[in-house]
Amino acid sequence: MVTIAFLGPEGTFAHQALRGLQVAEGATLLPLANVTLAIDAVRAGSADAAVVPLENSVEGAVPATLDALAAGEPLVIAEEAYLAVRFDLMARPGTALADVATVATHPHAEAQVRRWLIATVPSAEVVLVGSTAGAARAVADGQYDAAVGAAVAGELYGLDSLARDVADNENAVTRFVRLTRPAPPPAATGNDRTTFVAYLRENHSGALLELLSELATRGINLTRIESRPDRGRHGMYHFSIDAEGHVTDERVGDALAALHRVCADVRYLGSYPRRDGTRGPTPVGRHDPDFVEARAWLAGVREHGAG
Amino acid sequence: MVTIAFLGPEGTFAHQALRGLQVAEGATLLPLANVTLAIDAVRAGSADAAVVPLENSVEGAVPATLDALAAGEPLVIAEEAYLAVRFDLMARPGTALADVATVATHPHAEAQVRRWLIATVPSAEVVLVGSTAGAARAVADGQYDAAVGAAVAGELYGLDSLARDVADNENAVTRFVRLTRPAPPPAATGNDRTTFVAYLRENHSGALLELLSELATRGINLTRIESRPDRGRHGMYHFSIDAEGHVTDERVGDALAALHRVCADVRYLGSYPRRDGTRGPTPVGRHDPDFVEARAWLAGVREHGAG
Amino acid sequence: MVTIAFLGPEGTFAHQALRGLQVAEGATLLPLANVTLAIDAVRAGSADAAVVPLENSVEGAVPATLDALAAGEPLVIAEEAYLAVRFDLMARPGTALADVATVATHPHAEAQVRRWLIATVPSAEVVLVGSTAGAARAVADGQYDAAVGAAVAGELYGLDSLARDVADNENAVTRFVRLTRPAPPPAATGNDRTTFVAYLRENHSGALLELLSELATRGINLTRIESRPDRGRHGMYHFSIDAEGHVTDERVGDALAALHRVCADVRYLGSYPRRDGTRGPTPVGRHDPDFVEARAWLAGVREHGAG
Amino acid sequence: MVTIAFLGPEGTFAHQALRGLQVAEGATLLPLANVTLAIDAVRAGSADAAVVPLENSVEGAVPATLDALAAGEPLVIAEEAYLAVRFDLMARPGTALADVATVATHPHAEAQVRRWLIATVPSAEVVLVGSTAGAARAVADGQYDAAVGAAVAGELYGLDSLARDVADNENAVTRFVRLTRPAPPPAATGNDRTTFVAYLRENHSGALLELLSELATRGINLTRIESRPDRGRHGMYHFSIDAEGHVTDERVGDALAALHRVCADVRYLGSYPRRDGTRGPTPVGRHDPDFVEARAWLAGVREHGAG
Repeated sequence: MVTIAFLGPEGTFAHQALRGLQVAEGATLLPLANVTLAIDAVRAGSADAAVVPLENSVEGAVPATLDALAAGEPLVIAEEAYLAVRFDLMARPGTALADVATVATHPHAEAQVRRWLIATVPSAEVVLVGSTAGAARAVADGQYDAAVGAAVAGELYGLDSLARDVADNENAVTRFVRLTRPAPPPAATGNDRTTFVAYLRENHSGALLELLSELATRGINLTRIESRPDRGRHGMYHFSIDAEGHVTDERVGDALAALHRVCADVRYLGSYPRRDGTRGPTPVGRHDPDFVEARAWLAGVREHGAG
Repeated sequence: MVTIAFLGPEGTFAHQALRGLQVAEGATLLPLANVTLAIDAVRAGSADAAVVPLENSVEGAVPATLDALAAGEPLVIAEEAYLAVRFDLMARPGTALADVATVATHPHAEAQVRRWLIATVPSAEVVLVGSTAGAARAVADGQYDAAVGAAVAGELYGLDSLARDVADNENAVTRFVRLTRPAPPPAATGNDRTTFVAYLRENHSGALLELLSELATRGINLTRIESRPDRGRHGMYHFSIDAEGHVTDERVGDALAALHRVCADVRYLGSYPRRDGTRGPTPVGRHDPDFVEARAWLAGVREHGAG
Repeated sequence: MVTIAFLGPEGTFAHQALRGLQVAEGATLLPLANVTLAIDAVRAGSADAAVVPLENSVEGAVPATLDALAAGEPLVIAEEAYLAVRFDLMARPGTALADVATVATHPHAEAQVRRWLIATVPSAEVVLVGSTAGAARAVADGQYDAAVGAAVAGELYGLDSLARDVADNENAVTRFVRLTRPAPPPAATGNDRTTFVAYLRENHSGALLELLSELATRGINLTRIESRPDRGRHGMYHFSIDAEGHVTDERVGDALAALHRVCADVRYLGSYPRRDGTRGPTPVGRHDPDFVEARAWLAGVREHGAG
Repeated sequence: MVTIAFLGPEGTFAHQALRGLQVAEGATLLPLANVTLAIDAVRAGSADAAVVPLENSVEGAVPATLDALAAGEPLVIAEEAYLAVRFDLMARPGTALADVATVATHPHAEAQVRRWLIATVPSAEVVLVGSTAGAARAVADGQYDAAVGAAVAGELYGLDSLARDVADNENAVTRFVRLTRPAPPPAATGNDRTTFVAYLRENHSGALLELLSELATRGINLTRIESRPDRGRHGMYHFSIDAEGHVTDERVGDALAALHRVCADVRYLGSYPRRDGTRGPTPVGRHDPDFVEARAWLAGVREHGAG
């Protein structure tokens, strides 16, 4: 029986993302109060996986995810999932918009629906709580009149949607990842992503450039880069990076091995299918057969003096 | 009379950071419920400045700050402040540790004191709320027995500290910034930082390298880089960057002008004194007099055919 | 009255290249025995210009030209000329192929017609002399039966061509340059070339890359690069470079000024119209108006805090 | 019996360089009139090796050597030799300086002793011939009074040195190479050089930078680079390069294989001990064990999901 921890409580966006994954079928879903708890559950073995936000989260602390991955017992990303973050205004059945005097939600969610609330329920008091799902639960409990959160939270707590998709701007997308203890990656699909952390040896104006040169010379595009201060190394940084390609791709393996040589440390965090609907081309000279052929040529040069 | 908005309510870490700034003396301090509200207050003119987290925040959404700076009416960073985030366990006067049955705090803070709470008050129920300051206020109101938050929150709401500095690990530092409407930067001090956002023209494996080359060739070290997805340009990214140096430094101005040429867009977000206690050297050939001398040499070459 | 020195004697390929230049009309043409003599004549003021080979020369020492430009009193290239090197077999009028028992030519020319000579005049003795023009003169004097050289040498010394265009391979092209004392460059034409020498500060694996980055970031293509050992700096190199563009082009001036800052020394050697029939495009963001606009933007940022 | 061709005739600087090589002992030395003839003798099998100038030659055409190596049947450099080029003024025994009315030499040599001749034998006529050795032979034959050339030429033709080391400047050093048909390289010594030619796929401002990045990222220093126009590809170039290290060094083999992938073509021209008395350090992360360890790490990552 598989147990998957997630950033809870039930009804959060992380919960919604998790329910969309095939791996959730038949699994025990374990809500935990924050990203660190969920990740620690995997490390401790009390969960087989954790679904947590990695980018653009409404409720979760993305820096917490990044920092948890960068240090401590190794984990890998087994899968990613993109979730279009849509907010509903939800209330107990029978509540009308005109009845809404109090609205509960998470502060980050409030920032994204503020103009709509002012225009629609101008006299309602907005109360900030620890998660959008907690807001829905509190509404079900009768503490507040309405909650702003994911539709899934309304379903869970028996609320009706008074209004759907109420964000002020086109809704942001949050990227969630499923973390597991180290394991071989899923097979390459031809459109994959590899995540890793690189720690610099030195911190000068060319150091990051050197790191990126190892990727760029092999035609590997970055899709995310974030610098993070090193704990315990004042003024030093590491870089959390998503790159195109799979660790079993020649160019990606070659680049990671090169980074392993030239960086103070590289922590591999998984290769997995890319799910954002984008696909970068592999430049000339960076396909697998190019590497195989180049090795054969080099062997000939070394043995006979000609390729 | 100067009004400065901050990520509230009173007693948050942002509040504490703001109170440490000289500019806060004699100013009206305006607590707002989230980063977006605080930033919008500056844009709308209802505040002269906003103090919000930019990196490693406990309570505030750093992505929200980054995204607010990257789009909409321009703002600039006038000042930065680093705050060592220390958590206290606070209760109404007269409460003993043994009396604590409920502890309120923000979910991100909870992640950082969890082990301590389990070891110290193992039977206490932990309730997650929208901010650590809100937790303190709720304790003062009698809703919960204790709150985990900044010492300043305890002072504000008349609580005593049952225990000081209770974070499980050495406390993280949060970086706050004071944002204003566009204005000339404070004078260069010799150890400054410049923040900007660069939007790529294209998204290939060399594009970020090209961007960083404009900085590295001028000997400009990065101290932060974060990729962010572009709204409305699928699969495209922009980069939020902190670089060493001041916009009036020759090398920094030259690099920004170069980025302005080669990027789709560059948004300048301020030059201000660096306050993290680190200082990078300027490499040979990148000091102001080098630029002045090189221009004179070029003028001679263009006019006489020899420098 | 203008005097132009050239790599003589009369009838060399340099002479032929010089006669094709407009500047030769009405000028005194001064043949000198080698490249160094011709260059020294300009430095000393006994000639106003010198026409010498810079690349792929048949008779002249290209390293001599490069080294003469890299050190000593400054000179600039005012013009370039490409000459398709075609060899004729030339003899005194009345001589038939069957009469040719001795053939004189320059050793480098011999290398390019050897197979043809073996096939055509297999029993002829080949005598190596100091220039192809000297060979023609010696034939006119009756010393040898035939000479291999430029058609112009035959005309000058009254010889007939027994066979035209006798090179074993498609003829090479030699590039000649007209050198003068430092002077303002001719106006930019939109397809120009700039020549310079750059002396590195250090000699490590990244030093040349740094130099080329200053050109590549500004979209400047190289059309020639040659490393040359520094005299008096053991194990150090300088680089003789031809780059696309004119010193009055914004991107070229900007790059030269940058190299002046970051290199130990830069010696400008002229901007002049490109005459090899090739033309490279200027990439996006590197045109003159881009630089002008970027400076204006930077001025706005520095003055108002927004571009 | 080994036959070694050289740029003749006997008594040239190439001859002198060859006589200094261990491989010359007991070998048949075959003088040929120019570089192309000497190289062709190796290709045709009529010689086992050829000793020809590669850099800064007095008499030989270095471009001819470069172009012969870049195209046609493959050859490799088996050895290099540096020769300090010293000129003597030589005459038949019994000749006094005052008797010298004619001086024969090669034009490139003349350029290097001109000032000395003008100061020492101001009234002598200078005659330019095809090689300095030919000049010595002609003096022995009684054609001229004195020759300027290598001391070895005087020995061969029975001349005495009237003056030694008469160059106007400190004498240049010429680098000679011994070429053979393709063969395994001599064993790595720890201070080696590898020569190759790289043909670009495209000719833009970043193309050369990309090529050099493959070397620089692996910490490989260049000691020579020369662009040469491609025959038959108008406006395209190839690059003749000497790099530090041996093809059996991990970093060098890795770089050559990478260039083989990303360039239109790479022609390996040999690895051999470096003899210029200089030695570059190998940067951190680029030693052989670093590559071995990185491959092991990558294998672990691919198999277990952790290095």
